[in-house]
Formats: sequence, C-alpha cells, structure tokens
Amino acid sequence: MSQIHHTIDKLQITEQLHKAVSEQNTDYIQQLLQGLVAEEVAEILEATPPKERSQLWGLLPSDTQGEILGHTNDEVRANLLSHLDQHEIIQLTEALETDDIADIIQSLPDEEKSSLLAKLPEQNRRAVQTALSYPEDTAGGLMSTDFIAVRSDVTLEVVIRLLRKIGSLPKDMVDLIVRDRDGKYQGTLKLNELLVHDEETLVADLVDPKRFAIKALVPDKEVATIFEKNDLISIAVVDENNFVLGRITIDDVVDIIREEAERAQMASAGLDDEEDLFAPPLRSAKRRSFWLGINLLTAIFASIVIGFFEATIEQVVALAVLMPIIASMGGIAGTQTATIVIRAIATGKLGAKNSHKLILKETAVGSFNGLLWAILTSVVTWFWFQDSALGIIFGAAMLINLVAAAFAGALIPLFLNKIKVDPALASGLMLTTVTDSLGFFVFLGLATIVFTI
Amino acid sequence: MSQIHHTIDKLQITEQLHKAVSEQNTDYIQQLLQGLVAEEVAEILEATPPKERSQLWGLLPSDTQGEILGHTNDEVRANLLSHLDQHEIIQLTEALETDDIADIIQSLPDEEKSSLLAKLPEQNRRAVQTALSYPEDTAGGLMSTDFIAVRSDVTLEVVIRLLRKIGSLPKDMVDLIVRDRDGKYQGTLKLNELLVHDEETLVADLVDPKRFAIKALVPDKEVATIFEKNDLISIAVVDENNFVLGRITIDDVVDIIREEAERAQMASAGLDDEEDLFAPPLRSAKRRSFWLGINLLTAIFASIVIGFFEATIEQVVALAVLMPIIASMGGIAGTQTATIVIRAIATGKLGAKNSHKLILKETAVGSFNGLLWAILTSVVTWFWFQDSALGIIFGAAMLINLVAAAFAGALIPLFLNKIKVDPALASGLMLTTVTDSLGFFVFLGLATIVFTI
Repeated sequence: MSQIHHTIDKLQITEQLHKAVSEQNTDYIQQLLQGLVAEEVAEILEATPPKERSQLWGLLPSDTQGEILGHTNDEVRANLLSHLDQHEIIQLTEALETDDIADIIQSLPDEEKSSLLAKLPEQNRRAVQTALSYPEDTAGGLMSTDFIAVRSDVTLEVVIRLLRKIGSLPKDMVDLIVRDRDGKYQGTLKLNELLVHDEETLVADLVDPKRFAIKALVPDKEVATIFEKNDLISIAVVDENNFVLGRITIDDVVDIIREEAERAQMASAGLDDEEDLFAPPLRSAKRRSFWLGINLLTAIFASIVIGFFEATIEQVVALAVLMPIIASMGGIAGTQTATIVIRAIATGKLGAKNSHKLILKETAVGSFNGLLWAILTSVVTWFWFQDSALGIIFGAAMLINLVAAAFAGALIPLFLNKIKVDPALASGLMLTTVTDSLGFFVFLGLATIVFTI
Repeated sequence: MSQIHHTIDKLQITEQLHKAVSEQNTDYIQQLLQGLVAEEVAEILEATPPKERSQLWGLLPSDTQGEILGHTNDEVRANLLSHLDQHEIIQLTEALETDDIADIIQSLPDEEKSSLLAKLPEQNRRAVQTALSYPEDTAGGLMSTDFIAVRSDVTLEVVIRLLRKIGSLPKDMVDLIVRDRDGKYQGTLKLNELLVHDEETLVADLVDPKRFAIKALVPDKEVATIFEKNDLISIAVVDENNFVLGRITIDDVVDIIREEAERAQMASAGLDDEEDLFAPPLRSAKRRSFWLGINLLTAIFASIVIGFFEATIEQVVALAVLMPIIASMGGIAGTQTATIVIRAIATGKLGAKNSHKLILKETAVGSFNGLLWAILTSVVTWFWFQDSALGIIFGAAMLINLVAAAFAGALIPLFLNKIKVDPALASGLMLTTVTDSLGFFVFLGLATIVFTI
C-alpha cells in the first residue's frame, strides 16, 4: 500500500461489485474486495439488494465474514445469519473478539442462542456470557474482555517482562489497567511511563489514580459523553464491587456517536435506523404505516376545524385557496424553533431557568418574522384578490400563527422531554397539529367575523 | 476524584451556576467550576444568556479560558473574544496547542488577525501560520504540530534516550512518526515495540509502512471517514512532497463527526449549526426569514393550483375541508422515503445501479401504504359526508398522492445530489411543493370531473 492515503471511491467500487456479481465474475470480485476493510464491505452489503447480497456474501473469504457481520446493521446481520447453519456460525466467530461474538449471538433467534453458546470454546464462552449478561446499550454490552492488567505492588521490570512475553499488545492500548492485590481497579499506567522510568520503580508510584473506571450498567450514550468530555482513548469497565470486567475503546464510541445521530434523524420521520435499506416493501410499508396513521388522526383534527367554517368558505371561496399558506408558514417557523430546542435538549443545555429565556427569545423571533410576513403577504393578498379586508385578515392570521408556532415549537419539545418522551420522535407531528389547526381556526374564524356577522 | 466515574449532572450544575451568577456568589461559582472539564464549561457558556454569559466568563480562571474558547461554537467564541483586548487574547493562547490558537485567530476580525499573529512568540507563530494557511475544514486546518518524529536509520536505544529527554509525551500518542533522512514520511513506530525489542534494533526494521499519512488538503469529512474505517487513533499529515506537517488525533475527529451530524439536522430546517442559542432575536429572525421566504413561494404555488378549482369548491365545500388531509399524508410518506434516501446518500451507499432498485422499492412501499390508506380514508369520508362519490374520489387521490410522494421522495434527493446541492438542505421544501400541489391538483381535479362535468 502506498504511504499516502488515497481515498477509496466506495461508490465506484460498489457499482463495479454489483456489475461483477451480476456477471458472476468471481476473480474480479475478489480483486475488488482486497483493498477494502471490514466496515467498508459491511456498508457495501447494506447497499446491495437482497439477491445480489447473498451472492456477494457467498464469495467473501470465510475468515473475513465474522468481522464484516460485526459492522452491518441489525436487520442485515440477522438476514445473513439466517442462511447459515450452526457449524458455519461457529466458524465465523473463531477470529472475533468476544464483544463481536456477543453481537452475533444477540442477532440469532432465541432458540439458537443457547445451543450455539454451548458450542463455543470454553474460554470464549465465559467472556461471551459476561458480555451477554449486560444489555447491548450499556458499557457492559460494549466492552471487550481483551485487556492487560498488572498489580500495583510489582516493579516496572516485572511489567516489561510480562509485555515481552505477550509480544503484541491489543490494538489501541495506550495504558495498562492497574489492580490492587484483591483484583480491584486502582487506575492506569501509561505505556510510555515504562520507557522513561527506572526498572526498579513500583507500579504503585506511577499509577494514574485520576483515570477513573465506569460501571458496567452505564448507558452507552453516557459512555460516549464521558469519552468526549475527557478525550479518552480507552476506559476500564468494572462491576458493582470495583472488579475489572473489560475495557471500551474509542472506535466503539465513534460508532455509538454516529448511530445516535442517525437514530435522531430517522426518528423524526418515525423510522428505525436499524432497518435494511432493501427490506421487502410490504414489511417496510407495515412499519411506516403506524406513523402515517397517527398523522391521519392529526390531519383529520385539522379538517374538523375547517369543517366548522364550511358556510364561510362557501361564501368566500378565496379562503380555501389561501388557508394552506398560513398553515405551511406556521409549520416551517415552528420546525425551525423546535429543531433548535430539540438539539439544545439533546446536548443537555436546557434547564428551568434558561429554557424560560429561550422560549421568550424564540417567541420574539416568531414575532419579528410574523410581522415581516404578515405585512408582505397581506399586501400580496390584497392585490391578488382585490379585497382589502381579505388582505388584512390574512396578515393578522399569519402574524398570530407565526408567533404561536414559535411558542409551540419551543414548548412542545420541552414538554415531551419533561414527560420522558423523545422530543426528536414526537415533536414534529404535535407541532404541525398545532400550527395547522390553529392557522385554519384563526384565519377562518377572523373571516367569519368580518364577512358573515 | 473517585476512581469510579460519577456522571456529572451538567444540567443541574448549569442551573446552579446561573443562580450563583445572578446572586454574584463568586465562591460558589468557583467551587462549581472546579469539577468540570473545558468542554463542559464551553457548553454551559453556550447555554447561558448573553448578560449572564459575560459575567460567568469574567469569573473563569484566566488560565482555563483559552482551552474553553476552543470548544465553544463560532458565534459564541467571536462574541466572547470581542470583549477582550489584544493583550488578554495573547495571554489566553499561552497554554494552547497551535491548532487551538489558529481557531481563535480565525474567529477575530480580519484587521486584528495579523497584528495578533505578529505578537505571538516566534516558535508558535510559525506553527500557527502553517495551520492558518490551510482551510479550517481540511486535514491541515485540523492538525496539531505537536508530534514526535524519529529517523528510520537510528536504533531503539537512541529513540528511548530521546523519549527520556522529552519526559512526558503528547497526549494520546501511541506511535512515533518515522521519517527518512530527507525528512519524508515513512511510517510509524508503535510505542510498545520499544518495550518488546532489543535496544540495538533499527527503527527501520520495526516501522509499520502500512500506516499511511494523509495530505493536508483532504477535507475534514473524509478525514473522519478514514479514521472510522481504519479504527485509527492518530494519523500523520504531510504536504505535497511528503514532508510531515503535523498529526490529527481521534478527539478532533469525534468533534467533526458530532458536528457533521448536527449540521445535517439543522440544515433540514434551513438553520446554521454555529449559531448562538441566545443570539439577539432580530438577528435570528433575519437569518431564518430566507427559508420562510422560499417556503412562501412554494406555498403560493400550491395555492395557485387550488385557485384553478375555485368553482368546484364553491359547489362542493367539503373538498376544502378534506384537501389538507391528502397533502399532509403525502408530505409524511414522502419525508419517510426522503429521509432514508438522504441518509443512504450521506453514507455513500447509492450508485446508479442500486438507486434504481431503491426507487422501485420505495415506490412499492408507497403503493402498499397508498392502497391501505386509500381504502380506509374513502370509507371514513363516505360515512362522514354521506357521499359515496366523494369517498371514492378521496381514496383515489390519496392513492395517487402517496405513490407519487414515495417516488418524489426518492428522486428529489438523488437529483439534488447529482447537481451537487446538499440533499439534506433542500429536499424537504421541494418535496412538500410536489406533495401539496399534486395532492390538491389530483383531488380537486377528479372532483371537478365527477361533480361538475
């Protein structure tokens, strides 16, 4: 490999692979796969429709399949595993770290889990069982049991001898875990301390007690925050009694951060981020219909509001022409505020005191924009329909709806967060219910007063 | 500090700080700040309204202010810097790494940049100038010049002597950069190799040539991808001639990943992620009004479509009551598809071949859901308005709009990506233009044919 990194054009390789698969050009497929790391192959599999996906999977070198599976999303992994028998799955896991084996076992149907576990080699089984005993989204579920620990009452000479015996250290290891005589966590010892100090020095004199460990049940989102805040590379995981269970490294944390961001983005449209891009259409349709159903109810609610004013619309049909503009502008203004507030909540920035100020600020923003667009649109309406009263009603409704949208856009996510519902998930639908219904009500209500009373 | 990490409840501390600031309780403020790292203080500053923010800033120990500034967003940083004179800014930068100094200088007004640069100590100035000579969003703009390099033709003994002389190594350093006699990049040497090999061994025999370097002009998003794909902790940055300029560490990359995800989320509502949460309302309103203006144009377009059918609405006013439901359902169904496609594009998964399949799949999903909701809503409409024709028209319009929404939801992001416009930014507005206008057109058009001809 060249020493300068040339970015791989994954898209181009994906397309060439798809072509090679359809032409059954095995040699070319192997050649294309050679330059790729496991995560890239996993992404290419996710980007491949089901039929071609199984063909491609069958052509992957079997010693790479395990690591690749560790990088695919849940649905694609379960799908690929469903085509394998137990013997093949055991083979897959042979070269894997125990946390990756646990991921694979978790993707299997319940009845296969325990029978597969029983077939694992003794030393792996224990570690995998430990990993499985913690929920997937906690420090315990994330950790690898692949760490090196030394006792604090030995000299550096002993430690260096141990390292020489081990030969190659686990990837990304910048420090050793230090335990006391009872096996409890004490701190860490940086590898470079071994280089710069005398061999007679005791580990205890160099251990960094400020490097804390985390409990196995800490949620993964919090693990990510701890890494980010403290610029960590790895951290030890301990049980309730401070015994060391394993360690988490930054590469797992990077995945969590990426996934968490994707989850929030997908949730705002009522979608699951672990879904297969090429899932069968009927299955996808079923999953998405729940969200459409909820939206239908909110849309019907807005229609009922319009229904109150049928008589007015019959008289002034221009109202029907104009009313979607009010609703649409309210929706956008409210979404802008809600997006800001949802992000501030997600980053832990909104407490009782400053959220009041934020609501005030956002409502002020809504008022400024309300005023601007009220004036502009009322003039446009006046000329469009040659009706000054209609123009003034439209402007007034626009102003009221934009102020209300900003207020609701700030309030709804804060309220949802208070009642422990994910604001990213439900804010959008609740907000448009308010901006649509209120927009229609104010506009048609004002028109009813002016034109029919 | 305890060796087990207790998660800091940042929100609680933020609130206590705000209270302490309003009570001018300096001692308590100092006490609260003690347990926090720079990034946490930066987030608290971002979460603090302007007046209290400057008070709090004034109370921060001056030797921590520089690092804290490195973690705030652009607008908050520029705002805080605007209250400082040059002497104070120079003081701030004293304890900082050169890439952080470059960030601060970049936040200053142009006329202050060069005069400040001239006042930096000689050795820093060079490094900062190098960092400033690359755009902020490239490897060169990200890198720190804080690295240790050794020549490949020396023995480990020489390297170990060098490290002992340096004493403490830069944070997160797991390997040394190896250069040839001309100073060109050759590869890396893992620290632990120094422990497990004989002191007479030559660096050249242990250098890992597979550890590539990246060119200074590689965009930061690509740097993040390279780190993720190869599970890197750090990477060397080189110029066009392969001379080593600096190195990038994983903690900077984690920030990029987080920021990139936030940028996409904010962009979908036409917002800038570097905006101050507590920016003056008039300034925020001005920024957001552009997006509202574009939306107004698309909403007016939909209204013009409705306008064609004024006569029909006058005759059957129930159409005005029902039409927003069709538009709303189309908007949601289209957004679901668009969200999936935007994400697939962002992760580099959609090429010419599989995007055709994805469009097909999504249109199939739209058809299934269209059928389901068409049947359901036509029955509801039939009973609600006691009008079988209206029910059938409504169902037909629903079906057509949901299929079209899925098709447009897949096509629009792909098209935008092709013409090099960020799909996350513009897809939403374009999509609702289609689903609103088409929904109104089909529903009112069908009604016109059935009821008035």
